Amino acid sequence: MFPETIEDVQAIVRYANKNRIPLICRGAGTNLVGACFCDQGGIIMCFSKMNKIISVNRTDMTATVQPGVVVGDLQKTVEDVGLFFPPDPSNLRVSTIGGAIAQSAGGARTFKYGGIKDYILDLKVVLSDGSIIQTGSNTIKNATGYNLGQLFVGSEGTLGVVVEALLKLIPKPEASQVLMAYFNSIKEAANSVNTILQNRFMPSTLDFMDGNAIKTVERFFNIGLNTEKDALLIIEIDGFACSIDYQRESIIKILNQSGASGIRYSTTEEEAKKIWQGRRASFAATAKLKPDVLTDDVIVSRSNLGTLVKGIKNICDKYNLLVSIVGHVGDGNVHPQIALNLDDKEEYKNYKLAKNEIYKLTASLGGIISAEHGIGVEKKEFLPNVVHGLSVDFMRKIKKVFDPKGILNPGKIFD
Amino acid sequence: MFPETIEDVQAIVRYANKNRIPLICRGAGTNLVGACFCDQGGIIMCFSKMNKIISVNRTDMTATVQPGVVVGDLQKTVEDVGLFFPPDPSNLRVSTIGGAIAQSAGGARTFKYGGIKDYILDLKVVLSDGSIIQTGSNTIKNATGYNLGQLFVGSEGTLGVVVEALLKLIPKPEASQVLMAYFNSIKEAANSVNTILQNRFMPSTLDFMDGNAIKTVERFFNIGLNTEKDALLIIEIDGFACSIDYQRESIIKILNQSGASGIRYSTTEEEAKKIWQGRRASFAATAKLKPDVLTDDVIVSRSNLGTLVKGIKNICDKYNLLVSIVGHVGDGNVHPQIALNLDDKEEYKNYKLAKNEIYKLTASLGGIISAEHGIGVEKKEFLPNVVHGLSVDFMRKIKKVFDPKGILNPGKIFD
Repeated sequence: MFPETIEDVQAIVRYANKNRIPLICRGAGTNLVGACFCDQGGIIMCFSKMNKIISVNRTDMTATVQPGVVVGDLQKTVEDVGLFFPPDPSNLRVSTIGGAIAQSAGGARTFKYGGIKDYILDLKVVLSDGSIIQTGSNTIKNATGYNLGQLFVGSEGTLGVVVEALLKLIPKPEASQVLMAYFNSIKEAANSVNTILQNRFMPSTLDFMDGNAIKTVERFFNIGLNTEKDALLIIEIDGFACSIDYQRESIIKILNQSGASGIRYSTTEEEAKKIWQGRRASFAATAKLKPDVLTDDVIVSRSNLGTLVKGIKNICDKYNLLVSIVGHVGDGNVHPQIALNLDDKEEYKNYKLAKNEIYKLTASLGGIISAEHGIGVEKKEFLPNVVHGLSVDFMRKIKKVFDPKGILNPGKIFD
Repeated sequence: MFPETIEDVQAIVRYANKNRIPLICRGAGTNLVGACFCDQGGIIMCFSKMNKIISVNRTDMTATVQPGVVVGDLQKTVEDVGLFFPPDPSNLRVSTIGGAIAQSAGGARTFKYGGIKDYILDLKVVLSDGSIIQTGSNTIKNATGYNLGQLFVGSEGTLGVVVEALLKLIPKPEASQVLMAYFNSIKEAANSVNTILQNRFMPSTLDFMDGNAIKTVERFFNIGLNTEKDALLIIEIDGFACSIDYQRESIIKILNQSGASGIRYSTTEEEAKKIWQGRRASFAATAKLKPDVLTDDVIVSRSNLGTLVKGIKNICDKYNLLVSIVGHVGDGNVHPQIALNLDDKEEYKNYKLAKNEIYKLTASLGGIISAEHGIGVEKKEFLPNVVHGLSVDFMRKIKKVFDPKGILNPGKIFD
């Protein structure tokens, strides 16, 4: 169904609740963990017709939006008036604010600027009985009781239906620049990042590609990457225009001292886009290797990043799987992109075994199995391995409070 | 009681739960809304012996702390190794991390850097039955189910007892500088701030004092403030050393264009402290006017700040109350400091009436009655006026989930 108003949503929710019909919300459907599909029958509520940016308040630096607004559209709209909405999931050209809230989306800039959860001031939510709750206020700070808004962020549509969001904006940084540098290993690249941070630089983005990702992108897109290297670091710096040269030159010095080679940087927006192109093309390139590609989302503390990436590579080698590994060094967040043929039963079995081992490795390094994609149905069996057992019990109890009949996106996150 | 270990806390909680005895947690007791006192009998658990900074991880930029750690001590410890813990409640020299988490504390730097809630990665919490829950992970991002950690932030000890916190740190900015400027009204000062932000500057602090606060500080501390002016703006800028001159000169230009006078800025840390001295002395100075002083904490969107401050002044004049008004322009957050004699029944009655009107005015401007102090017992009767009715219902239901017997800090936030 395609609701056009909050009242439409309320009517649909009431109908579903009365008749105990599962209700699944959907934005652009870009979700990667099976959080917005209908595996138990039911009604899918698609928000493509509730896609208005209701208002942008320049003075208060806020935006009021409907859930179907595309993240990239919001960014463009606010940047046109000198404001900035930092959350930048990689699918932002199609993915929606509602989906970003549901999955607690992050992005490349999360390291410096935080994720969607850090930009929620107020949510209007239709609850499972059709009533409406407002979780916050139009103020930057709020210490009036429990932070109900954050309960809905990352709840994957299992607690309520977000029908309007008041988002915090910040002034858009004056300038930015993109650097790239090769390393002989991800570990070396991560060490270099640590030195950059210890020298009190805070780049907005600290992304990486491993050797396979570099080779695969180069094979299909031929953009001039050095395929002999096992790691590529992509750093975006931003801030006052007068600080850019200082940041860049200081960081280049650190990169050189920590074994980097092939250092380049953008001097125009066009060049910045070109440097990003490789990183962004990785998924599409890996998809060309086999009929299907599955990306994952694991995260450890930054000091364990090198070990995790190496371990994932070894696991995939063991199971004869093609993997390109990319991610965010700053966050310790790794996205292994595995190319496979889902119709090949043997290969799919291997994929399942590899995935299991990757999650075990992540957990053994003190990490968790979702940084910014969510749990959905894909990861729910692994959830107890990474969250404290009691946490899942309490999540279930909270679910019961908000959705006693269990109609809202049942079977997602946990059973 | 003074627990020294997590096991001590568990034992005390189990005893209280078994015997249905109210249990109140206390850090430094600086709370301003009556959140950590014992109005229904019971056990007070004081965390002054659980005050260790367990570890600071320079590579991962995190700190693990016990709840009794003093905020200022943590700041100093991490700054010594080039790291930064931004939350800075004004009582940070004595107030504790546990208290800051309980009350969702902010501070002058919240506008740029966020409050305590934005620096919580993981909490270890003793629940009402003595069991322990861990709410997060040692990773910067986390999308594994409901965000339970944020439920405890600002819950004022009513849902569980935080016994350990893993906090996020960031690199310490290279340099900072403090500016001050006088205006003829708070409205003018707020307009000037809006222009600063629209020019894409993001000062770390944008604080103000009203005419009464200026006069009262000057009367008792004689530090050379201009008592003819009705507003003083204190701006702290920070960032790369090479950007400070640019930020300062650009902001001074804006200040001049928007009617400021008496603009000064610090050139040494000593001078910076001196500029802050006036703002920080306001509470102590107001306290000298009468035997008692009560400070409050209301917040509106920044565009309504001038109206709110003027309204508070009028309300206090009407009830013949002495008020110094200070606060954070960036956040729209106002702290009226009212001097009175609590033994003077007439004056206290007037205070209660004035407070009521201030809250009503705040609500009528779309604001709320607590930005960073919490609700406690002081404000609970007003809570339904500023949070959506259903929100309080759901807060009660969540309380029931975590504390079925109602032993944890009963009667705080709501009945």
